[in-house]
Amino acid sequence: MAQSQGFDAHCLTVAYGQRHGVETKAARRVAEALKVADHRVVNIDLRAFGGSALTDDIAVPKDRSDAEMAEGVPVTYVPARNTIFLSYALGFAEVVGAYDVFTGVNAVDYSGYPDCRPEFIAAFEALANIATAASARGRFTMHAPLISMKKAEIIRCGVRLGVDYALTHSCYDPVDDLACGHCDSCRIRAAGFAAAGVPDPTRYVKTQ
Amino acid sequence: MAQSQGFDAHCLTVAYGQRHGVETKAARRVAEALKVADHRVVNIDLRAFGGSALTDDIAVPKDRSDAEMAEGVPVTYVPARNTIFLSYALGFAEVVGAYDVFTGVNAVDYSGYPDCRPEFIAAFEALANIATAASARGRFTMHAPLISMKKAEIIRCGVRLGVDYALTHSCYDPVDDLACGHCDSCRIRAAGFAAAGVPDPTRYVKTQ
Repeated sequence: MAQSQGFDAHCLTVAYGQRHGVETKAARRVAEALKVADHRVVNIDLRAFGGSALTDDIAVPKDRSDAEMAEGVPVTYVPARNTIFLSYALGFAEVVGAYDVFTGVNAVDYSGYPDCRPEFIAAFEALANIATAASARGRFTMHAPLISMKKAEIIRCGVRLGVDYALTHSCYDPVDDLACGHCDSCRIRAAGFAAAGVPDPTRYVKTQ
Repeated sequence: MAQSQGFDAHCLTVAYGQRHGVETKAARRVAEALKVADHRVVNIDLRAFGGSALTDDIAVPKDRSDAEMAEGVPVTYVPARNTIFLSYALGFAEVVGAYDVFTGVNAVDYSGYPDCRPEFIAAFEALANIATAASARGRFTMHAPLISMKKAEIIRCGVRLGVDYALTHSCYDPVDDLACGHCDSCRIRAAGFAAAGVPDPTRYVKTQ
């Protein structure tokens, strides 16, 4: 979406000790396919704190109903994760001289994460414009183009822009490169493809 | 200062590939001497971006005059550094159930860093109270008790509270455990001890 708006994409992936480390591989595949200007993978250690099913020895919930998924903050919430991610993005933007920062957070289909809401993005933009040396010379804009879109709309939009979803990854608890098909992320992704009427290229673990 | 106000101190040190990595050793010494509740050292990689004399192959400025030091943002500024640090502190606070976050930033003697100003701390506090699951249950307060104090006042306050300054480290460009005596940080520290009338226990590199 950033490229379609004419931006050169300097991409940042954060490897934070997540159970689904395979997503950094997917990010590399996508960055390569899109011929981005630059792609950095930063290694950080969120396991030092723990407190999340994504970084700790807490089981990833499976086969939850829509009602269960709508209830409060899930155990897959990683404390302050998006705040940390955007802080890195801000530092990276400052070093490359960028003032537009894009993030793919989404608040609609899954509103349990506090750091995926428009208020969070607005508060971070306010912070960015005070926190940096660069903010004395220009104004940072935080873009969250997916934030209010339903998953089906996101998928249709990606198809329109030529995204190859076979390169992408969503599962929280994959086995090798294969999606589990049962975590919240898998279920929401699959429902999105179904609602969009787009064939789902995701490769799932074979179960009996 | 947090302990003197009755807080249990859960301490966080960030090793970010800084030239003066010895400061993490100093942090361990201080944490041990103060018998803090907990001390974590998180390793992060800010060298992936570079852009600072503290993390990159850029020379640390030496023997600058007060006028030179007062001019703009120095090359020792690390893009978005304190934003990243406080984001980690926020995640750590959320995991241990704390709502009071202390940081030692100081805006007076050295005002060149945008992320050492009261406006920055206020903007981060606003963000913290939107960004986290914990903010639905309580209110985060950012404390920056040193922010408006002159270095001499800080030193006097530390002496009053029983701080052993021989355990501490400020130099940006140390040789082993010894301070260079010529970087901005050394000069400001030395001037602070002199102004406070407190003997300076800092061990400097011997020069001819």
